[in-house]
Amino acid sequence: MMQTERVLQQVLEWGRSLTGFADEHAVEAARGGQYILRHIHPSLSDTSARTGRDPQDETLIVAFYRELALLFWLDDCNDLGLIAPEQLAAVEQALGQGEPCLLPGFEGCAVLRASLAALAYDRRDYAQLLDDTQRYCAALRAAHAHAAGAERWSYAEYLHNGIDSIAYANVFCCLSLLWGLDMATLRTSPAFCQVLRLISAIGRLQNDLHGRDKDRSASETDNAAILLLQRYPAMPVVEFLNDELAGHTRMLHQVMAEERFPAPWGPLIDAMAAIRTQYYQTSAIRYRSDSAGAGNRTPA
Amino acid sequence: MMQTERVLQQVLEWGRSLTGFADEHAVEAARGGQYILRHIHPSLSDTSARTGRDPQDETLIVAFYRELALLFWLDDCNDLGLIAPEQLAAVEQALGQGEPCLLPGFEGCAVLRASLAALAYDRRDYAQLLDDTQRYCAALRAAHAHAAGAERWSYAEYLHNGIDSIAYANVFCCLSLLWGLDMATLRTSPAFCQVLRLISAIGRLQNDLHGRDKDRSASETDNAAILLLQRYPAMPVVEFLNDELAGHTRMLHQVMAEERFPAPWGPLIDAMAAIRTQYYQTSAIRYRSDSAGAGNRTPA
Repeated sequence: MMQTERVLQQVLEWGRSLTGFADEHAVEAARGGQYILRHIHPSLSDTSARTGRDPQDETLIVAFYRELALLFWLDDCNDLGLIAPEQLAAVEQALGQGEPCLLPGFEGCAVLRASLAALAYDRRDYAQLLDDTQRYCAALRAAHAHAAGAERWSYAEYLHNGIDSIAYANVFCCLSLLWGLDMATLRTSPAFCQVLRLISAIGRLQNDLHGRDKDRSASETDNAAILLLQRYPAMPVVEFLNDELAGHTRMLHQVMAEERFPAPWGPLIDAMAAIRTQYYQTSAIRYRSDSAGAGNRTPA
Repeated sequence: MMQTERVLQQVLEWGRSLTGFADEHAVEAARGGQYILRHIHPSLSDTSARTGRDPQDETLIVAFYRELALLFWLDDCNDLGLIAPEQLAAVEQALGQGEPCLLPGFEGCAVLRASLAALAYDRRDYAQLLDDTQRYCAALRAAHAHAAGAERWSYAEYLHNGIDSIAYANVFCCLSLLWGLDMATLRTSPAFCQVLRLISAIGRLQNDLHGRDKDRSASETDNAAILLLQRYPAMPVVEFLNDELAGHTRMLHQVMAEERFPAPWGPLIDAMAAIRTQYYQTSAIRYRSDSAGAGNRTPA
């Protein structure tokens, strides 16, 4: 069996211990994870002399893809109501604290947290991953509440929340934890924090522009384009958001050119910035912009 | 003579050593500085037991108003071309490095920098003030270049630059330097940096919304409302920017409620957030929104 298949099997198997987990979560996690690892592979190989962490270490890859699958599953738990609200609250509590879930049906949470704690190259990344998880869950909850009409957000507030709900910080932190990318130290640099905000905003804008038609046909309002059009019907929102995306991308390139972040951060940020053209558009399920791929799931 | 008049006289007198300096720069500095000091006076009195710095110390007040007057003068040097480009470059270089200006006619720069260096409660604030000055000058230059059509900014880029060009960080840093507000330590906190970004964006949006008519009649394009309207003629820009202002203000209040910053930061941030209603609208010259006040100067 190829490594790719073996890894996917291990993510699927682990996912069975999470109520509401779907094969799609594992498949998209493996696809997304592979996209990222492929782009930073040469750079990760260079740093492995320092860290002793092999880019092709199967244990590390499985842990990475499981964390990505967890993020997809949490997203759908919020948007699609895969589990009951009290279950979700218990899951969030457990994941954010690194403790076993108090309710049955979510044993995978503790399994994943224990393995990440054990695999952490730098223990600070593990503590930060718990914080990032709390922030991600809070942002998903806020976005869901907003979409349900409980709040009326400005564009600024939507984007601020969308920076957390896109979960790029979580992805980077998990990579850093597993392959020793020293993110805990980098996070103390204002320039790195600016890069994190910019690439996350770029991810949010790409995601919303790409998913606009799908979200609209699903009456989903948790999308910058739909939110702006609802508030300002005469506004050319797609043009505005494309300009915003281009602006954020120019600012990102400027900071990246001025600062010198250690490997593999350059290729990693580049890979994330290119996700719209190189990853979304090849998605078979989650990121199809037409409705054909949504046949086996409720659109989110 | 009242202290207010004595202080203003000392700012005016100092300003005579800066080519292009106008009485208005001193008058507006004294008015703005007084507005800020009045709002934080009780809180500054409380901290004076720790710092030994009297809120009514005339030497400190003069230095503060001079720095504010310098910021107004630099703004007009860019917008109104008060001095030649090579003079401005030399001034920026001198102010950003804390060194005497190489060209004659700007002796006030070195006088002010020397007095601030000597008065600094925490030397780190002085180093940071030089950095903030460099950032402010770069933002003014970029805004001027953009207004001249050299670049086509997105709203995100405009606001990012506008956060620096509003110079609130400079104002806070100067206050901290003079009255020991420990800003150098606070700047290492991500929450404080978020507050700085939010209050600066609020200041920029308030400034642009307030000055919209004046800027439009002066064909000034360095204004969010004018930039957006040029790019998206059908967009309800004032409604959008008012919503953005309200959104940033809600986010600011949320961080301020969650974090506990030491005195006098709470009243100080509140005073800055209220500047549109409590300060701009009483301006006799610089911030008049009609054109009557602009009679004695080119509008900026």
